[in-house]
Amino acid sequence: MITSTANQQIKNLVQLQKKGKARKDQDVFIAEGLKMYQEAPQDKIVRTYISESFLKNPENSSIKGLKDAEVLEDRIFDYVSDTKTPQGIMCIVRQRHDKIEDILKEEKPLIMILENLQDPGNLGTIIRTAEGAGVTGIIMSSQTVDIYNPKTIRSTMGSVYRVPCVRSEDIYADIDKIKEAGVRVYAAHLKGKSSYTEEYYSEGTAFLIGNEGNGLSREMAEKADKYILIPMCGRVESLNAAVASTILMFEARRQRN
Amino acid sequence: MITSTANQQIKNLVQLQKKGKARKDQDVFIAEGLKMYQEAPQDKIVRTYISESFLKNPENSSIKGLKDAEVLEDRIFDYVSDTKTPQGIMCIVRQRHDKIEDILKEEKPLIMILENLQDPGNLGTIIRTAEGAGVTGIIMSSQTVDIYNPKTIRSTMGSVYRVPCVRSEDIYADIDKIKEAGVRVYAAHLKGKSSYTEEYYSEGTAFLIGNEGNGLSREMAEKADKYILIPMCGRVESLNAAVASTILMFEARRQRN
Repeated sequence: MITSTANQQIKNLVQLQKKGKARKDQDVFIAEGLKMYQEAPQDKIVRTYISESFLKNPENSSIKGLKDAEVLEDRIFDYVSDTKTPQGIMCIVRQRHDKIEDILKEEKPLIMILENLQDPGNLGTIIRTAEGAGVTGIIMSSQTVDIYNPKTIRSTMGSVYRVPCVRSEDIYADIDKIKEAGVRVYAAHLKGKSSYTEEYYSEGTAFLIGNEGNGLSREMAEKADKYILIPMCGRVESLNAAVASTILMFEARRQRN
Repeated sequence: MITSTANQQIKNLVQLQKKGKARKDQDVFIAEGLKMYQEAPQDKIVRTYISESFLKNPENSSIKGLKDAEVLEDRIFDYVSDTKTPQGIMCIVRQRHDKIEDILKEEKPLIMILENLQDPGNLGTIIRTAEGAGVTGIIMSSQTVDIYNPKTIRSTMGSVYRVPCVRSEDIYADIDKIKEAGVRVYAAHLKGKSSYTEEYYSEGTAFLIGNEGNGLSREMAEKADKYILIPMCGRVESLNAAVASTILMFEARRQRN
């Protein structure tokens, strides 16, 4: 049992929780909580950590794969946890390496392209909602918040294991690739003349979603084949990025069903 | 200029930021940031506070209504602010007192009924999205997170001033009132047999949305006229409460347009 914060593994867990660079260098991330542990692909789990209380709780005796888990004194587990009320289980999981080519292999893909999203919860919620809406994959500009941020991971509720996500080094070139594959690219934009409900998304479709504060950059918006508008009542000028994404993804799903 | 955290007004601001009870007793809440200040109904603003830097910034000289604003030393403003990067302006605003009867006065109302939502950001996002979707009003069970929580206020982006919101003391009796007014009540529920896209929401419509962790309680779900399902792909079991609300509100809006 690990009983000290000076332990090398504990120091490393803290680094992995806090630093995107440490996660990138080691090519892993931390998934916390029972659901995140149980949904993780077994062959991607590097190491599992449980608290002493978690180990001693008879309700947990039927959980699989824990025989090699490292046990941490409760206060040590709390120390490395990113949550206020830790469930007592976390694991180090290998990062995915999805490629745009894999996403474009699908027939009539449905793709979300995110520009510089900054809120980890928003990104996680979009990934979770995307799985629910049957999105083929998500492409993010290089300045988007780290998908492996603990808050993002938590908000995905496990969808991070299943939705192909690509961090693009050259988003403009990648959008060109997507267009060359016959996918029509729509930008949710205040300049849109037609409502999002007036277009057809049954063929290959991609939606461009902009940053929370500034919306889409001019350069990104210009890559779109068409601007669409989400008509709004009242004095609302814009919607939360995850909300706008939800509306578009589920309209595409509705049309495809 | 206020230069001490021992100042009585500063002590009160801290109470109002942190304690729902203080907000309730004084019947006010705090709205932070320039947008929240500018969109506040003038007759509801009790007092405005700005930082010394905000006062001295020539860009702010054209902002109206600031001649009686209290000026706070920057470090005092930071001390009372609920945000990491304070904009240097906040105001105390009187709470709204909407009634269910006001919401039901509207022809063919579109109503959201929220049961015990716990995440302030979720509640705020729902209020903001509701204004955009043209929702008539929001009714919340008594255990729902405080609408005047600073995080909720911020997430509404000003919609809190405009969307009628009622905290119900007896949610079951209030749902009966809504039904007696001819409004059809739908519950988003896993037991739903028809998809949400197969129903018609052009007449008076209310949607029941459950708590983030547990969904709708059995008692609440039983109040519904009909269960509807948001069909989901992949292994997603449920959606974020704000996301589920968004899908239903904008489907109703789509049908009503």
